[in-house]
Amino acid sequence: MELRGKVLIAQGGGPTAVINQSLVGAVLESRKFPQVTKVYGALHGIEGILKEEFIDLTKETTNNLEKVALTPSSALYSTRLKADKDRCIKMFKIMKAHDIRYFFYIGGNDSSETLNIIKGEAEKESYELRCIHIPKTIDNDLVLNDHTPGYGSAARFIAQAFTGINLDNYAFGGVYIGVVMGRDSGFLAAASALAQKYPGDGPHLIYLPERPFSSEQFLEDVARVFNRLGRCVIAVSEGIVSADGIPMVVELLDHSNVERDEFGHRQLSGTGVLADSLAELVKKRLNIKRVRADTFGYLQRSFIGCVSDVDQTEAREVGEKAAQYAIWNNIDGSITINRVGDYSVEYSLQPLEAIVGKTKVMPDEFINEEGNHVTTAFKNYCRPLLGSNVPSPHRLRAPLVDKME
Amino acid sequence: MELRGKVLIAQGGGPTAVINQSLVGAVLESRKFPQVTKVYGALHGIEGILKEEFIDLTKETTNNLEKVALTPSSALYSTRLKADKDRCIKMFKIMKAHDIRYFFYIGGNDSSETLNIIKGEAEKESYELRCIHIPKTIDNDLVLNDHTPGYGSAARFIAQAFTGINLDNYAFGGVYIGVVMGRDSGFLAAASALAQKYPGDGPHLIYLPERPFSSEQFLEDVARVFNRLGRCVIAVSEGIVSADGIPMVVELLDHSNVERDEFGHRQLSGTGVLADSLAELVKKRLNIKRVRADTFGYLQRSFIGCVSDVDQTEAREVGEKAAQYAIWNNIDGSITINRVGDYSVEYSLQPLEAIVGKTKVMPDEFINEEGNHVTTAFKNYCRPLLGSNVPSPHRLRAPLVDKME
Repeated sequence: MELRGKVLIAQGGGPTAVINQSLVGAVLESRKFPQVTKVYGALHGIEGILKEEFIDLTKETTNNLEKVALTPSSALYSTRLKADKDRCIKMFKIMKAHDIRYFFYIGGNDSSETLNIIKGEAEKESYELRCIHIPKTIDNDLVLNDHTPGYGSAARFIAQAFTGINLDNYAFGGVYIGVVMGRDSGFLAAASALAQKYPGDGPHLIYLPERPFSSEQFLEDVARVFNRLGRCVIAVSEGIVSADGIPMVVELLDHSNVERDEFGHRQLSGTGVLADSLAELVKKRLNIKRVRADTFGYLQRSFIGCVSDVDQTEAREVGEKAAQYAIWNNIDGSITINRVGDYSVEYSLQPLEAIVGKTKVMPDEFINEEGNHVTTAFKNYCRPLLGSNVPSPHRLRAPLVDKME
Repeated sequence: MELRGKVLIAQGGGPTAVINQSLVGAVLESRKFPQVTKVYGALHGIEGILKEEFIDLTKETTNNLEKVALTPSSALYSTRLKADKDRCIKMFKIMKAHDIRYFFYIGGNDSSETLNIIKGEAEKESYELRCIHIPKTIDNDLVLNDHTPGYGSAARFIAQAFTGINLDNYAFGGVYIGVVMGRDSGFLAAASALAQKYPGDGPHLIYLPERPFSSEQFLEDVARVFNRLGRCVIAVSEGIVSADGIPMVVELLDHSNVERDEFGHRQLSGTGVLADSLAELVKKRLNIKRVRADTFGYLQRSFIGCVSDVDQTEAREVGEKAAQYAIWNNIDGSITINRVGDYSVEYSLQPLEAIVGKTKVMPDEFINEEGNHVTTAFKNYCRPLLGSNVPSPHRLRAPLVDKME
């Protein structure tokens, strides 16, 4: 049975390089259906719904939508506001007033949870409302998905960044530490491994939240690589935790004279503290002179012009699929991506409850035994997600000249 | 009169995205001359000369050289070793033993100085040695040059980074501080202004080493922008100094409980300290909740895949010109780039002494009156250097929907 009414689309959580592809996929597909009376966008995710701040995407040109699709970050703006039950009830009332019959929320875990509560409220009142969660997260931590839109482009940025960093470190020697986003899952930091081309290329060590971090083991690892190569490039996930379950960003700060209470409320991102603390540790304990540390910060999730075409395509398709499932099939759920062959994907719809509140982490077969690097299985998993024409570095191969003196 | 013998090429100082273009330009052009008996590359700049570590670039394939040209960072590796007179004399002897008759040094100020001393030694002994300085620096601080190879690509990275950062900040609001390389000259931080497309786009404030930095004025500026827009994106040059001439990275640390002596020897780059200190200042004094700070660090000078084609071409050409001036004309000097029309360049050869030991800073007409942003004149100066196909962001233009509730 056809469900007549408006479509509402919103974006939540951290931006990605391709989140607008999903928006545009959903908008363009929705606009084709005669039973869709309007396509609205909520500004700043659920905040926009609560404040009734909608824009009419039926009045947006196709040309501009295609240009916006290529623009990183959330074109509808975003929010970190948590949706409690009261807020969901309030939102639901506003959506009902506008005769919203299809709600597509592009986001991660939190967004799927919000959607699930709103769906419950609609069912209670026997108000027909289709709720579809469109996945996105650079962390790649949604369950039931082989990978998530946004991850491929962020992974490509990290791989390209470490390609340059490795060359830079090769030119000078010394130790380099790069801190990469990823609170609970190490997928993004792991992508640094794709920078390895020639034997001896960095990153030589990769530390992930999936394995407990020990400063002593870290120092041993770094010393071993440095003694062998005269240099060491290290990728560190911002979310690494000690064996006691304490985030290292907190643990290491105790050694740096900064008060803990100042830090307790700090974000993992947007500060260089973890990178600097690890660099200090290496300098002091290993007595290595040239130690540099960078925190990749906000560059990695919305850099324009470093995008995976595979990621773009898939982000567009999950948006389109959301409209198709909801409007043709009249059902709710979360769009998921499944890998088929090498390399292709299929999409399916999973119940919202199967996604909500769960976090996917790196499986054991993607992490090496020592817990300080990734396996070939991970590289094979990650490589196609980076897309086409990933730039590759080249070395001189000219022979050494015999000495005269 | 033809000067028969070997060509020696070396790279010094910080890597750039196009420094290998200059290397390859010089190698390929040198290999065409019959009086050139070999083309050598010194590994790790002057360290390689002192250790007599040369590779024979006459035995390198043209294909691989072309691939290396597209690879960022220094393919011959680099060095920060300062060349004193004793070292120059030692180097000169080794070069003489190998019958080096042409020495091309790709680098910034320090490299031109080294070259000048070696030239002096050769003249004393009446040993014919052509010395050409091939310019490179992302800081864009060489005098007598309209701009320097390496700057355009780094500027493009900074402009693209701030394009994404501006979109990210727009999606969430709050204050964002990005610290950009540049010890004495603000050219690279200034390039962030090229990210401004739509009215209200960031960076809203840009702080340069050319103007004294006042924390109080900074806080006033940030408060004004934040109160107007609900957000503020700020580009800060790592080299900003207080009115007393104290680097802000030192001045601000005094407020953060970190011992000054630990820091006195710190690099400006490779630590997140300046960004974090400024963020703390904004948080505490302006009571703004969402304040994020990133230090762009080593990403900005050797990122693979974010390169200006104009910069690539010019870097190649200065390398080629070095070989032409030295081998055809049998003269010494530093290759310089002069802008002609809008946009084209010409190359000329200047005496080494005219370049050595001088630093170009942003001229007054490139900095706004308040000293917290750039002028249109700077944007016009900088834009062609970024090269072709700089990605441009797009916004939704859909109208707001009338409220129902």
